[in-house]
Amino acid sequence: MSTVSQPSEQVELNSLDSMIKPLTLTSQGVSLLDQTMLPTEERYVTITTPEAMAHAIQTMMVRGAPAIGIAGAYGLVLSARQFLETGGTEVSLLANQLKAHSNLLNQTRPTAVNLSWAIGEMLATLVAIMATDSSITNCVELLTQKANQIHQEDIQACKTIGGYGAKLVPKGGVILTHCNAGALATGGYGTALGVVRSAYARDNTVQVFADETRPRLQGARLTTWELTQDHIPVTLVTDGMSATLMKRGMVDFVVVGADRIAANGDTANKIGTYTLALAAKAHQIPFYVAAPLSTIDRSLVSGDTIPIEERNTDEIAMINGEKISAEGIQYFNPGFDVTPADYITGIITEKGIARPGYEGSVMALFEKAL
Amino acid sequence: MSTVSQPSEQVELNSLDSMIKPLTLTSQGVSLLDQTMLPTEERYVTITTPEAMAHAIQTMMVRGAPAIGIAGAYGLVLSARQFLETGGTEVSLLANQLKAHSNLLNQTRPTAVNLSWAIGEMLATLVAIMATDSSITNCVELLTQKANQIHQEDIQACKTIGGYGAKLVPKGGVILTHCNAGALATGGYGTALGVVRSAYARDNTVQVFADETRPRLQGARLTTWELTQDHIPVTLVTDGMSATLMKRGMVDFVVVGADRIAANGDTANKIGTYTLALAAKAHQIPFYVAAPLSTIDRSLVSGDTIPIEERNTDEIAMINGEKISAEGIQYFNPGFDVTPADYITGIITEKGIARPGYEGSVMALFEKAL
Repeated sequence: MSTVSQPSEQVELNSLDSMIKPLTLTSQGVSLLDQTMLPTEERYVTITTPEAMAHAIQTMMVRGAPAIGIAGAYGLVLSARQFLETGGTEVSLLANQLKAHSNLLNQTRPTAVNLSWAIGEMLATLVAIMATDSSITNCVELLTQKANQIHQEDIQACKTIGGYGAKLVPKGGVILTHCNAGALATGGYGTALGVVRSAYARDNTVQVFADETRPRLQGARLTTWELTQDHIPVTLVTDGMSATLMKRGMVDFVVVGADRIAANGDTANKIGTYTLALAAKAHQIPFYVAAPLSTIDRSLVSGDTIPIEERNTDEIAMINGEKISAEGIQYFNPGFDVTPADYITGIITEKGIARPGYEGSVMALFEKAL
Repeated sequence: MSTVSQPSEQVELNSLDSMIKPLTLTSQGVSLLDQTMLPTEERYVTITTPEAMAHAIQTMMVRGAPAIGIAGAYGLVLSARQFLETGGTEVSLLANQLKAHSNLLNQTRPTAVNLSWAIGEMLATLVAIMATDSSITNCVELLTQKANQIHQEDIQACKTIGGYGAKLVPKGGVILTHCNAGALATGGYGTALGVVRSAYARDNTVQVFADETRPRLQGARLTTWELTQDHIPVTLVTDGMSATLMKRGMVDFVVVGADRIAANGDTANKIGTYTLALAAKAHQIPFYVAAPLSTIDRSLVSGDTIPIEERNTDEIAMINGEKISAEGIQYFNPGFDVTPADYITGIITEKGIARPGYEGSVMALFEKAL
């Protein structure tokens, strides 16, 4: 059976807006909240070149699948601006430059599909522009509009996801989440934390547990900071505690984000997500994935072929620059894992909630999106 | 069905001895390897009073269920020595002092049963001495003998456990372990790492994965240090990676220690163990607990009543003294979890391997021990 939930009533967007602006396009460049400095420092940096944007994505100053999609789109705006400012006049040369910078940006992180999706949207816009007789100024203007649109649509999609997801959370329920799929990871509202925000706006007795999410501690560093900014109470636990919380009856609902979802519903997300899904299944606790359609990669039949980034082993070997393991050992540092669709209660998107039988239910969401 | 494995051949102790001496009784006191300083520094401190020993247990300078049992026994030797040195002559006064110090030591950490077990053994020895007409010098001598015996028997038990466990590990197999149930956690050979040591001595193509074990990182800080001291290769992963390792077919065998085992086989061990057991079950990977009989608390029908220590929340809030989460949030820090017996393939003890149907199989091991 493949079904798409059709909420009987309009999704209410009585959701808390987030105060957090992870990235903003300005006349000077892109203002990025440097997420590597949180929670100790709230520092904004201005990115002015596509190379600097690629570096910011690679070093995780900006991270989270939807956010790096938007960052990639803005990176191409910076490329187009550069072309204009250095006196470029040929649209075909602009196209060559954008393609080169697209490759650069695309290579920064392999797992999240939103990056290549957003870059693809930008290149499609360029192709459409090239079919007309446009000036470079006009090209820059249209590419800027497209990038801003991707950003605004992401915020809107997250709010809609939040609205759908909030209705699944029981009154006074306890929500557990992993990593940071929040305002910081998106255009500014969040997928999993969009559900949390919307649920809390409806019912301020809901509670939130955040997994710290080793090795990079996005749950500890980012999710707790983000939720306290928006005055939503949160309790932090280590990754190994989730199963015992569930066993003690302390969790009612699990929601996580996604970096790439295959056509069959298999979901790549931050390492540790699969562990959580196994525990949720064993305790019969609903386990939801919240993600915009741009995270779904229909070209992949299953999660088996999702590329999994292996990151620098210093992320495991050291914390805050101090070695926490013996010399002369090996490390293994996959950044993501794949949760099989069987473990996922539903995928909450901006077009509704896909339920098991994902091949059909996910396709139905895309048909609604047309 | 309750069965106790009866190995058809004698257990071979061709096991690697460990070079590690976590605690040693000397004429000056107890020389403790300060485990809070590892792996960066190998520092030994001399403990001379039962109060200092209680503090060392509480602050985890010495940790691991069997090791804190031995430390508790030595703490009472220090008490008896103090009594002698300050000119005490009445055995009944010595008994009062030992009981007071027993209470002090027993209160340091609630979950591991070995501490109260070893203290109980020491007090039983005192009762036996009191039935004779002993001098205080003689009491000190006999209590010292008993504590040394507890220590030596633990090492021997661990070697036997290692021998039984090693035969369960497939040729060239990959062993995953959690926390540190090693020489550092015992008299000097290890339970789970005793199995690893013995397996490696039989077949140096076996491989080892160690979970880092947040929040206190005993896997990262202690297990990697311990194994490299004994030249056994090890790969470190974060706690959230174990399930994906299993899904990728990279793990053949899981073995962990225990802090307290109920009569039905339910096992309290370091937080995160239950998560690992759920993942092992989902991937049909054998999940073994390795522990001496002194870890089994036959007074508890099930794991539901095992006291679970809740530790200082700074262990989650900070790493190396640096805050890694936002201000104004809550934390939850249970130090242990309970893995239901259903998830345990076998409990490897010095008297053989108990198999499911633990009420009977565990009892049979105790009968063998008589």
